[in-house]
Amino acid sequence: MPNDFFLSIENSAQGEKHAMQHVLGRLSYNNSGLIPVIAQDLYSRDVLMLAWMNQDAIAQTLQSGFMTYWSRSRSQLWRKGETSGHFQRLKTMRIDCDGDTLLCEVEQTGPACHTRRKTCFYLEVDPHTNTVVVTDSPPN
Amino acid sequence: MPNDFFLSIENSAQGEKHAMQHVLGRLSYNNSGLIPVIAQDLYSRDVLMLAWMNQDAIAQTLQSGFMTYWSRSRSQLWRKGETSGHFQRLKTMRIDCDGDTLLCEVEQTGPACHTRRKTCFYLEVDPHTNTVVVTDSPPN
Repeated sequence: MPNDFFLSIENSAQGEKHAMQHVLGRLSYNNSGLIPVIAQDLYSRDVLMLAWMNQDAIAQTLQSGFMTYWSRSRSQLWRKGETSGHFQRLKTMRIDCDGDTLLCEVEQTGPACHTRRKTCFYLEVDPHTNTVVVTDSPPN
Repeated sequence: MPNDFFLSIENSAQGEKHAMQHVLGRLSYNNSGLIPVIAQDLYSRDVLMLAWMNQDAIAQTLQSGFMTYWSRSRSQLWRKGETSGHFQRLKTMRIDCDGDTLLCEVEQTGPACHTRRKTCFYLEVDPHTNTVVVTDSPPN
């Protein structure tokens, strides 16, 4: 699991720059060639969703400026919003310390969730009452 | 990939409650029995890290109130902070619409990252200059 390349740059000081293609080429993908991507709303700072990218999805996201994921259920690239109109414009893309997760700040058009709720995280665990509470209704 | 149980409750209205053990028992784990967990700082709202939990880790986190992950490199449960002192106290735990990701708001003691930076996401992709920029230095 340790990623030698990311280990080798972890003492870099603020402002240091590394060649983008070199770094992206050394990300840790899972056995399916995918990396988890967290989408966070640039303005509300709500975490909207987690989805997956492969190398092509990362390249297309950077090139187009629109979040483009790998759909594991449909086995194809999927520009978020291409059918719903609920696009995500990429504002920042960050990589974590061990190169196995991406965090993207986005400008979200409309709701992020396929249920048309604002975010996908509308189920909250309440250990005091041993229940899971629905925190948002789907729109009519 | 579709999770029939989570599909069946996606039209639940705000305030509806479901039995916690029933919902947790139907989460989608990957082939290693793990689910990705996003830790977000309750106060700054920064995304701190992504790590993984198995069923036991979820149970221990809820029971203890301290974020407890499955360490994939050490193949053991790991209460975050048990060696560094940089604990994460669980404040909220949310599940996403299709039951395959958790989002936890935490009170973070000290830095979240093993490099002693505040968050793990200190590498920012800059497609305009084709570089990856280090946005935070490790402390001396």
